[in-house]
Amino acid sequence: MIKEVATNKIFGGWQRRFQHYSSVLNCDMVFSIYLPPNYDEQANKQKTPVLFWLSGLTCNDQNFVTKAGAQRYAAEYNIAIVAPDTSPRGESVPDDDAWDFAQGAGFYLNATQEPWSQHFQMYDYIVDELPSLIAENFSIYTNKIGIFGHSMGGHGAITIALKNPEKFTSVSAFSPICSPINCPWGKKAFTHYLGEDQSRWSHYDSCELITAATDRLPLLVDQGEEDEFLQEQLKPELLLQACNKYNHPLNLRRHQGYDHSYYFIASFIGDHIHHHAQALTKTS
Amino acid sequence: MIKEVATNKIFGGWQRRFQHYSSVLNCDMVFSIYLPPNYDEQANKQKTPVLFWLSGLTCNDQNFVTKAGAQRYAAEYNIAIVAPDTSPRGESVPDDDAWDFAQGAGFYLNATQEPWSQHFQMYDYIVDELPSLIAENFSIYTNKIGIFGHSMGGHGAITIALKNPEKFTSVSAFSPICSPINCPWGKKAFTHYLGEDQSRWSHYDSCELITAATDRLPLLVDQGEEDEFLQEQLKPELLLQACNKYNHPLNLRRHQGYDHSYYFIASFIGDHIHHHAQALTKTS
Repeated sequence: MIKEVATNKIFGGWQRRFQHYSSVLNCDMVFSIYLPPNYDEQANKQKTPVLFWLSGLTCNDQNFVTKAGAQRYAAEYNIAIVAPDTSPRGESVPDDDAWDFAQGAGFYLNATQEPWSQHFQMYDYIVDELPSLIAENFSIYTNKIGIFGHSMGGHGAITIALKNPEKFTSVSAFSPICSPINCPWGKKAFTHYLGEDQSRWSHYDSCELITAATDRLPLLVDQGEEDEFLQEQLKPELLLQACNKYNHPLNLRRHQGYDHSYYFIASFIGDHIHHHAQALTKTS
Repeated sequence: MIKEVATNKIFGGWQRRFQHYSSVLNCDMVFSIYLPPNYDEQANKQKTPVLFWLSGLTCNDQNFVTKAGAQRYAAEYNIAIVAPDTSPRGESVPDDDAWDFAQGAGFYLNATQEPWSQHFQMYDYIVDELPSLIAENFSIYTNKIGIFGHSMGGHGAITIALKNPEKFTSVSAFSPICSPINCPWGKKAFTHYLGEDQSRWSHYDSCELITAATDRLPLLVDQGEEDEFLQEQLKPELLLQACNKYNHPLNLRRHQGYDHSYYFIASFIGDHIHHHAQALTKTS
C-alpha cells in the first residue's frame, strides 16, 4: 500500500512522492519516483526501465529530486528514477545527535547491533522491499535495474550492485565512500551498526567486494578534485588499486575544480543516465 | 565592496555568492552570480552578457540557483545570471509575520510609506545599484541586460523592463503576477508600501504600463494551467487583454499540467535563456 503525498509535472513527466509502511524497516517511509513522459501505466508490454538513486549523509529523497536536474535526461532516455530516503525515520526509530550517524545515515547495510538492528535494515529495503513495491505499483521493469548514488549513496550503489549482479544491470557513483572500513565515517557507522568485529565489515566495503566479485560489472565513478572529503573519507585511490589488482573495469573520472555538492552532480548527471540507459536498453 | 561567501563549480563555470552593503536598501545584501566557462575576468574586450533573475515570494537568491537548472543553458549560451534576494534583510529591517509581505516580499518597488520606505527600495536596487555593482566587479555587459523572473519576480521583470527600455534588452516571465492592483497579494503589498491612494499603484502594474510603453519589447510568458495561484493572483488574461489592446507583442504559452513550482521553471528555463540569448547577441 502506497499513498501519494505530492505530484508535480516536470519535463513532460511526473515527479511523484509516496508514503508507505516498510515492514523491513519497521516504520513509515517516503520515496520519490520520476515517471518520464512515455511512461505507460496501463500497457504491460511497454514497461519503463528504472534507476535507483541512493543519496548521501543527511539527505532524504528530496535533495536529488530538487537539485540534480536529472528529470531532463530521464525524460530524454525514457527512464524512471526512484529516490528513497537514506535511513529509517520517525520518533520510534533510534537516533543520534551526530549528523553522520543514525537517521539520515543508514549506510545501506543491515545492522546487527542493538538498538539499531530493529530498524536499520537499509540493505534489504533497497535490494528487495522497495523494488518489489515499485513492481507492484508501477509499470516498470524491476528484474533489471540500474543503481547509482552520491557519497554514502555511492558506497551503497557499488556494494549493492557488486553483491547482486543478477538484479542490477548497471552502476555508477559520484564521490563515493570507496572503502568505509578505512575512513572515519565508515568506521564510526560500522562499529555501531555491525559491532567491533571488523571481519564482518568487509561485506559492505566496495574495495573488499571487488576481490570476490563474480560479475565484472563496469563502474563509472566521477570525483571532484576540490571535494572537501576527498582525502580523509572518500579515497578513490583505494578503489582504483582494487580494480587494477582484480581486473575490474573502472572508469574513474577526476574533475578539476568540482566539490562534493549537488552542483557537481548536476554537471555530470546526464553522463551517468546515458551510461545506465545504454546498459538497460541492451537488456530490456 | 563585495565579499565572496561561497563558490562552486558547475557545468564548467562558477556559481558564486557575494555579500555587500546596499546604500539604497540600507542593509547588507547577498546575491548570486553564475559565470559561464567562457567568462573572461581579464579581457575587457570579451565581456559576458548578463541576465537578471527576480525570484518570487519567500525566496532568496538560492532557490533559483539550486533548483532551476539554468546553469547548463547559461554555460551553453555563454551568459552570466545574477540572482538577487527578494527584499532588504536583517534585524534592523522591519518585517511582518505574513509570508506574503515585508521581508522576502519586496515586490520590486520603491516604498513611500513608513516604516517601509527606509529600506524597501527594491526597484532602485535592481534597476541601478546592483547593475552598477556588477559592472564594477565583473567583466560583464551591463548597458544591455536581459531580465526575467517568477511570480512576484515575473511582475518585477516585466514592470522594470517596460519602464527602462534603454537598459533592458529582453524580458520574460514564469507565472507572473500580471496585475498586482487587481489581486490580493498586490493589493495588500501596495497598500502597505505605497499607501491607500491607488492612483500611485499603476506605476508598478504591468497591465497599466503596457498602455504607455514607449518601446514594444516582446514579452515571453509561460504559465502552468494547474498553477494553484492562477485564478486569484496571477491573471494572465488581463495581460493578454492589455497587450491585444495596445498591440504589444506577447508570446503567452499555457502549459497543461504544470503548477507554480520550480519543477515548472526547470522544464522551460532553457527556452527562456534561448529567448534572451537571441536578443543579447544581437545587441552586444
